[in-house]
Amino acid sequence: MKPLSPGSTIGILGGGQLGRMLATAAARLGFDVIILDPEPDCPASRVSARHLAAPYDDAEALKVLAGSCGVVTVEFENVPAAALETLIALGVPVAPGPRALAIAQDRVDEKTFLNGAGAPTVAFAAASTAGEAAGAAEALGGRVLIKTRREGYDGKGQAWAASAGEAGAVFRALGERPVIVEAPADFRRELSIIAARGWDGAVAAFPLAENTHVQGILRRSVAPAAVSPDQVLEAGEIARRILDGLDYVGVIGIELFELGDGRLLVNEIAPRVHNSGHWTQDGAAIDQFEQHVRAVTGWPLGPAHATARVEMTNLLGDEVTQWAALAADPTCRLHLYGKREARPGRKMAHVNRMSDL
Amino acid sequence: MKPLSPGSTIGILGGGQLGRMLATAAARLGFDVIILDPEPDCPASRVSARHLAAPYDDAEALKVLAGSCGVVTVEFENVPAAALETLIALGVPVAPGPRALAIAQDRVDEKTFLNGAGAPTVAFAAASTAGEAAGAAEALGGRVLIKTRREGYDGKGQAWAASAGEAGAVFRALGERPVIVEAPADFRRELSIIAARGWDGAVAAFPLAENTHVQGILRRSVAPAAVSPDQVLEAGEIARRILDGLDYVGVIGIELFELGDGRLLVNEIAPRVHNSGHWTQDGAAIDQFEQHVRAVTGWPLGPAHATARVEMTNLLGDEVTQWAALAADPTCRLHLYGKREARPGRKMAHVNRMSDL
Repeated sequence: MKPLSPGSTIGILGGGQLGRMLATAAARLGFDVIILDPEPDCPASRVSARHLAAPYDDAEALKVLAGSCGVVTVEFENVPAAALETLIALGVPVAPGPRALAIAQDRVDEKTFLNGAGAPTVAFAAASTAGEAAGAAEALGGRVLIKTRREGYDGKGQAWAASAGEAGAVFRALGERPVIVEAPADFRRELSIIAARGWDGAVAAFPLAENTHVQGILRRSVAPAAVSPDQVLEAGEIARRILDGLDYVGVIGIELFELGDGRLLVNEIAPRVHNSGHWTQDGAAIDQFEQHVRAVTGWPLGPAHATARVEMTNLLGDEVTQWAALAADPTCRLHLYGKREARPGRKMAHVNRMSDL
Repeated sequence: MKPLSPGSTIGILGGGQLGRMLATAAARLGFDVIILDPEPDCPASRVSARHLAAPYDDAEALKVLAGSCGVVTVEFENVPAAALETLIALGVPVAPGPRALAIAQDRVDEKTFLNGAGAPTVAFAAASTAGEAAGAAEALGGRVLIKTRREGYDGKGQAWAASAGEAGAVFRALGERPVIVEAPADFRRELSIIAARGWDGAVAAFPLAENTHVQGILRRSVAPAAVSPDQVLEAGEIARRILDGLDYVGVIGIELFELGDGRLLVNEIAPRVHNSGHWTQDGAAIDQFEQHVRAVTGWPLGPAHATARVEMTNLLGDEVTQWAALAADPTCRLHLYGKREARPGRKMAHVNRMSDL
């Protein structure tokens, strides 16, 4: 794609905090932003030139986007792939493309793709009945993690079965929906790599982050993670295989398990900017949001090296009331999302705690 | 002032690039922004929750601001002081206050204030007639710089008189308006210090920048400037005297002359974020825009130390077409303003060139 000139408009499907931070990064590069999000007062709407408050598959809204935008992107992976197909049919470039989203929306398709691309994962099997789930658990050694194939996030839609005998009950508890049955990953740490790929196939990756999840929600990322040079190479190679395999354009978040022997498995991919990359806002040469804007607009990718050591912590629910104390701490950089309601567990803000590399 | 909670709204008078960068800094801290600027499609309007396209003294618009905002600030000094008085009368805090703006709007009042506050300047005199201008030039040694008292910026509204005999002609060429007649400053370098003061009187200053002007317009700032420890102390003391003397709240830009013997004179003050502080976006712990937002909202001031060495260059007029080459340079951080027309000399963007401290 010919690079979009400053003054062009970028469409973003989704107007949460990721859309908000993408919008301000786009503004820094001279772009205007139109947000499509059904929520009338969504966080990104207040930092964008225009907000279309309509469903993601609204024909009229998609027509407006296609008519106004030089490119359309997404802030979350559960946008209906059909909406992206409609936009492409209307003649506007979309990045990442519908195939990447479709693959990331289905955990079986995702892991099948990953293994095919040469990115290792835990062993897994698909199941559509309680019997299939039990059979899969048996084949995978008994104790398994069962997840709905679609629409789980932040630890929702998944549960452990301690044995093949329990797998049927877990399947029913998850709503008797198609599931993926996964062998346990005997991991030492959770890591992630945030990488980007341009329309021209160029790839750039940020240093790895080490992540801590609590109840399925990311609590903390530390970057650059203490990893071996081999692991840096391995993670970079995994990222390149995934990006090339998806013919991907934009920033992707790749969650990794570090096994006891140091090898890396891919846990899941998020075809968008990623919570574990928020450290880049204060600790990298450019941040993941600008990198994504550069990638999707056909600009050259920017430098992704670390400039500081960062510990990023999410502020969930009413933890956001800590803002005054955090604002007074000179080691902290605060990022608040402008959400009106601090519901329990809701991501309201994050803080980057700075130290020297 | 009690710190404004995230979710509150900040009003900004002026919607150019400074308002735009203030608005995105405010968004980062969870604030909403309303812009008042008569220009329908001004740069800040596209990154703000709301834009009132009305004159700065529009009674209805000021009422909306007062009714919606927790504080109102300005992006440029030539806002009518009466508009700020109206806002205060309507019960909304305004920072910086009308007195600081009124003083900065009149070069004679400004230098009179500065000397009274213990901040040294060149010798000067006021003149309202050609005869007074000639007399002032005579008293100041012949060769003088004559400036209109009000409304000059970026080198406009000023001219040199080589002798007292020329002063009358220069006075007439400037439109026979009240002027300030200034002795030449025999300076070695132009420096500036960007400082902030909170409602509680706390003061913080960024490291000094060394500035190069061409035809009265800032071309380049290098920061931190190579200055002596004594000069750092002296500049900090000057900043504190000015801020305390104005009972100032917010970020201020103070332009300095460095004389041959190293002493500092104040050239002028800008009661707002300042072009020579744009380096802080990529080279300081927090940037001048967040610092201003913190100051005016009653938040604690943030850390202002340098984290990198930066050479900031303005892109004027069609120099903005260099964006593609600059985007490909990994040492460059680009900031584009979203202006529709690249008129000659217009500030369209700036680039921060990074190197290690």
